[in-house]
This record gives sequence, structure tokens and C-alpha cells, in this order.
Amino acid sequence: MRWSIVCWGPIRWLRMTELLAGKHLAIIGLGLIGGSVARGLKGKIPGLTITAIGRNTQVLKQAQHDGVINQYSTDIAQGCKGADIVLVAVPSLSVGGILEQLKPVMTEHMAITDAASVKGAIMDAVAEVFGSPPAMFVPGHPIAGSEHSGYAAALDHLYQGKKVILTPLEDTNPAAVSQVAALWEALGAEVLSMSVEHHDAVLAATSHLPHLLAYALVDTLSQQGVSEEIFRYAAGGFRDFTRIASSDPQMWHDIFMANGPATVDVLDNYIEDLYRLRKAVLEKDSAELMNTFTRAKKSRDNFLTVLNTKPETKS
Amino acid sequence: MRWSIVCWGPIRWLRMTELLAGKHLAIIGLGLIGGSVARGLKGKIPGLTITAIGRNTQVLKQAQHDGVINQYSTDIAQGCKGADIVLVAVPSLSVGGILEQLKPVMTEHMAITDAASVKGAIMDAVAEVFGSPPAMFVPGHPIAGSEHSGYAAALDHLYQGKKVILTPLEDTNPAAVSQVAALWEALGAEVLSMSVEHHDAVLAATSHLPHLLAYALVDTLSQQGVSEEIFRYAAGGFRDFTRIASSDPQMWHDIFMANGPATVDVLDNYIEDLYRLRKAVLEKDSAELMNTFTRAKKSRDNFLTVLNTKPETKS
Repeated sequence: MRWSIVCWGPIRWLRMTELLAGKHLAIIGLGLIGGSVARGLKGKIPGLTITAIGRNTQVLKQAQHDGVINQYSTDIAQGCKGADIVLVAVPSLSVGGILEQLKPVMTEHMAITDAASVKGAIMDAVAEVFGSPPAMFVPGHPIAGSEHSGYAAALDHLYQGKKVILTPLEDTNPAAVSQVAALWEALGAEVLSMSVEHHDAVLAATSHLPHLLAYALVDTLSQQGVSEEIFRYAAGGFRDFTRIASSDPQMWHDIFMANGPATVDVLDNYIEDLYRLRKAVLEKDSAELMNTFTRAKKSRDNFLTVLNTKPETKS
Repeated sequence: MRWSIVCWGPIRWLRMTELLAGKHLAIIGLGLIGGSVARGLKGKIPGLTITAIGRNTQVLKQAQHDGVINQYSTDIAQGCKGADIVLVAVPSLSVGGILEQLKPVMTEHMAITDAASVKGAIMDAVAEVFGSPPAMFVPGHPIAGSEHSGYAAALDHLYQGKKVILTPLEDTNPAAVSQVAALWEALGAEVLSMSVEHHDAVLAATSHLPHLLAYALVDTLSQQGVSEEIFRYAAGGFRDFTRIASSDPQMWHDIFMANGPATVDVLDNYIEDLYRLRKAVLEKDSAELMNTFTRAKKSRDNFLTVLNTKPETKS
């Protein structure tokens, strides 16, 4: 099931505009993710009102001053009251607490979505707050980000050409799904749908594991005693390889707390492959090394085609 | 000992020009590394003659047509005869065979250097060919590259602002060292010096290990059965993390064959750290995860300062 609809161009735009025009969007958490949604939507949808809810009034004031949001509140129930769509854009482990505070002002017309990188743990939190998941709750995850965090790092084009995965349940209200899909499509994203479990397994492999590996490598090297000297001779390849180790520790702490088993599953496969390569290196197994590197290069070059990227700039 | 001299600007340029003007440079292997040297030098040094030696005459003809080299040969002895500086720019394991062919035309005025990423294995090959290392041989390694390979990927600015490590021995001729240092400095590189062993340990940590990890990750994921689907949901972070897995398999095969023990040393530290993190993830050890990620982010942000990079563009 794909929510990215077949009608492109003006008709698609009309549909999104229709679904969002005159609506009230509440964004809880005005960091990189929530801030980029506000920046990307502002001024694009006729009559759309954006309320940001956060704890840092300085940031909220700044965003209002920037013309990125219409209004703000530091109180979740107050800020979300009467909203048509609520986007919960906070680290994975904070979503449950937020929903608890949102509960008193929820209505059957209020579509609610989140942007957390893990969906199983979010559904657990939802179950804890509501018993069975509300029909208007549409779990979501924009596959977009940066190693930078906070409102200051928000970009109006962050979601342009990126993928957003929704993981609705059988009982999820289709109108709520359309509403949430329209929100992301208005930001230029492609919206796809899959099961909660599948999402968490796929993201463990392509996102969570690489972050763990990058954090671990930088940490290993920085413990080597001569780390500053080691880093001095590192070049562009190392910079790119470790870029994701500059990501927000709190966000990634939450992700690994929330998606541990799926990440460890693929980590165990990886460690097994590392031991195989370790053996090949020690035994100077020329064929094994050559085969692995050739196969990996081919896969990675294929991945670029799948990603449909422009040729990368050279380091 | 640093070969990057204290005199900068016009005086430094004069020195390099003086050392290279009117000289004959022979480059064996006109790929990314050798091709970028030729591209970067051509037209900059008065009277410098560049001869390229390679096996692919089509590439050699193209380079001559591009005005990047003055002449070419497919025969090492013939192409290098009478050269003042010879740069051997071939994969690590091929250097020995090249030196064997170079031997008959070597003179005591011919400075010879290489560009291989491993220096211990090069010194072993040198010992095999010559007994004791010739005084005019200056082992070298430009810390610059790209996941692209071949002459077509060569860039005139590849070495601009990059580091080049020379690993001369006690008996290495200082005039040869100056000559080779001038070559790299003329390309805008900073030339540094360290021992062979230290070079191989540092590079194992900052370059060889990351390449092994990236190759292994792409290979692990591509063996997951649903690899195309997995790759479909990967984003910019994954692209950057795995960029080095698109590097030339032959070159990296040679590097691991040549620098196995040093790479396995740091790989073992890394796997140990991975197990520690695996345990923390499984046991939901919040403090351990938060500490590791925070420490790694701090180290990585420090590394950017050490590298003195401009702020990175956001993904």
C-alpha cells in the first residue's frame, strides 16, 4: 500500500491544499524535525495556522518572529486544543508522556502523528496511555535528518524528495492517514506505508546500526591515548564515515533504548561478517578479500542507483 | 621532524620552483593518484617535463592530448631513464615489481618515491629488490583520495590542503627528501614526517579500519535477502557512512594484505567496544549509552576542529 498517490503535479497539489487549507496544525517540539515542518509549510497553504508547543520560550518567540509559526504555547493541552492535526516531534521515549498530556483535548476529528525513528516502542507507549490505539493516531517517521539538532538547524527543504513511512494499523482512520500523508507531501516528501515491525527491522539495518557503528568507532579511537594525533591524519573519508557520530546523543539514546532487539539482530550478523573479514586479513586470503570488496562496491553502487542520487562530489 | 618549512608564501614557492624547475618527473601509474599529480603540476613549474608510464595507452594518449603530461611510455625503464624524480603511484602490492623494473636505470641523482597507503610492506618489498633501501628512495603517502578511481577521476586540486606523510629512514638522502617534499608542496599539500611503523598504526585506525567497516556493512546488508528494499529506505546518513565502500577493491585488497596486523589490532579494540555497546543496548543501560554517545559526539566535534574544516553542509 503506497500513500503517495498516482496523481502528480497540479492535481496532487490541489488535493494536499484542500486537505490542509484553513486547518490548524499543532507541532509539539520545535527542534530540527518539527521546526523543519513549520519552516517548510509556512506561507504555502492558504489559511493554515501553525501552533508550536515547546519548553524553550526563547526558541518559540524566535520562530514566531521569523514568521515560521503563528502562535505558541508551553502547555500541550492548551496549545493543541481545537487542532486538526497534531505532530509530536520529540525523542522516542518522550512520546508517551506527551500523549498523556494531549489526551484531555483529543477529539475524534483530531489527527495525531509522530515522527519518532522507532515505531514499535511508540505503539507500546500508545497502548499504555490509551489501552487500544486511537483510530486518529497515525504513526509516522520521516527518513530525513541531519547530525545537527534544534530549531536553529531546521531547514525549509529538509523533507524535499525524502521518504516518510507511515505505519497505520487496520483500525486507523483513513481520513487521518490522508491528512497526515498530505502534510508530508506538501513538504515534498514521498509517503509510503508498511507494518510497524517491518519498519523497525529495516531502520535498524539502514540507520540505527550505522549510527551505533559510527559512535563506537569514534569512541574506540578517542580512547586510544593518542587520539588527537590519530584524528590529525584522518581525511575526508573518515569525516564522512563518522559524520553521524555528531548526532544528538539523547535522540540516539532513545532510539537504541526503543529498538534494541532489532538492532542487535543485525549487529550480530555484522559482527559475524567482521570476524570473517578479520580471518581473511590475518590469513591473507586474497580471494575472500577481493570477493567481499568487489561485491560490496557493486551493492553500494547499486544503492546509489536505488537512491537515485546525482553523482556524488569527490572528496 | 616536519618537512613543511617555516617560510610560506612567495619564498616557499620560490624554493619549490627552484627544486623542480627544469626537472624531469616520471609518474608510474596514471590513475587517480598519479593523474592528479600530473594535473596539479602541469604548467605550474617552469621547464618541468612529465613522463607518464602506464599499461593503458588510450589513457596515456588522452592525458597527452589533455596537455597533462609531456610524453608517455609503456616501458618503465625506458620512461624513467634520466628522470630526476620518479613517483610510483600503483597499488601497494605492485610497488616491488615496479622497482625491480626501475632498478637498471636508477642513478644516485634519481629521487624515487611512492604513494602507497602502507609503508611497512613497501619497505619489505624494497628490501627484497635492493637488499638495503637505496638512499634516494623516500617512502611517501598522500592522505588524499576519493571513492572514484582511474585517470578520469583525477583532479588538479586533489592534494590542495591535504597532508602527505613521508617516512624516510636515517640513511635516506636529505636532498631526495627535499625534492619529494617540494613535489607535494607544489601541489598545495602539507608535508609531514614520521616512522614507518607509526604511519601504519595511525593509518590502520583512521583509514584502513573505517574502509573495512564500510565494506563489511554494505556486504552484510546486501546479504540480508531483502537488500534492495533495505537500501530503498536508507537516507543521506547511510550514503555518507558507506561512501568509502565504493572505493577500488584492488587497491583496498592490497592495503589489507599489506597492513593486516595493524588493522586487526585496532579492529579487535573496536569489536570489544561493539560488544560493550551491544550489552548496553540489550540491558537498556541508559547511562552507558548516553555516556558513550556524548563522549563520541564530543570527540567527533573536536576532530572537526583538528581537521580545521569549514562547517559541514547539512544532509
